[in-house]
Amino acid sequence: MHTVRLKLVTIVAEPVLEPRLVPELHALGATGHTVTESRGEGSRAMRASEIPGDGRRIEVVVTDAVADRILAHLAEHYFPRYAVIAYLTDVEVLRGEKYVK
Amino acid sequence: MHTVRLKLVTIVAEPVLEPRLVPELHALGATGHTVTESRGEGSRAMRASEIPGDGRRIEVVVTDAVADRILAHLAEHYFPRYAVIAYLTDVEVLRGEKYVK
Amino acid sequence: MHTVRLKLVTIVAEPVLEPRLVPELHALGATGHTVTESRGEGSRAMRASEIPGDGRRIEVVVTDAVADRILAHLAEHYFPRYAVIAYLTDVEVLRGEKYVK
Repeated sequence: MHTVRLKLVTIVAEPVLEPRLVPELHALGATGHTVTESRGEGSRAMRASEIPGDGRRIEVVVTDAVADRILAHLAEHYFPRYAVIAYLTDVEVLRGEKYVK
Repeated sequence: MHTVRLKLVTIVAEPVLEPRLVPELHALGATGHTVTESRGEGSRAMRASEIPGDGRRIEVVVTDAVADRILAHLAEHYFPRYAVIAYLTDVEVLRGEKYVK
Repeated sequence: MHTVRLKLVTIVAEPVLEPRLVPELHALGATGHTVTESRGEGSRAMRASEIPGDGRRIEVVVTDAVADRILAHLAEHYFPRYAVIAYLTDVEVLRGEKYVK
């Protein structure tokens, strides 16, 4: 099958941040997103609210340029203040045009 | 450790499709699968049923050949009709023989 | 953005193993972890306990050296006895120093 290489951006954040982050991800160029409930613990113990360890894992599949914009956005607006982690993974998809606005 | 490179196939689909997709993935060559509950939104708003946004994330670790068969199967039987997304990721595993039928 | 390449280690195991595995992962060098609930089925039907198919997906982002130690640990202490699967994925992160003890 003919696949296209894109980036999967995985963000793990406090639940309270989900309703703010998701529209921002779409505004930055994501055409869809997936959220799963998670628990965990990071290297920073501080959290703005919520039950300690409760989290949301938010995933988007985007172009390299959008992935870069998302990381820059997180670095500026979230990393200094919140217990957010984010990582990029190379993925291959069919119908690459579905992931571009 | 000596690892073997395989493909992780991640499929995000409506819950109603899980009981149909899982046996098909096994028939196509998967030796196991993992399902997590998710929520989300894609570039296609239409869904055959279920609460909008409710989803299942189905993952299998398979050989390149099986991953290709799975994508071809999805492209033929699911993509035209359902709000399904799928992507491949390179993974490294120990005991590669566990993932081959 | 300047990113650093690390390894995402994904472990899928019976729920009963989570309270034992998580501190071991931290002792082996992980600085954080994420757990999601899952269901599934593997190539080994036997499970030590729990509802068949119920599982925990445990993820850590670590250096290559720590990923290798985790795989070696699983191979020695878990694979012979439990229905555990584990795989490594290359990921790119910002603030790589957060993932190193």
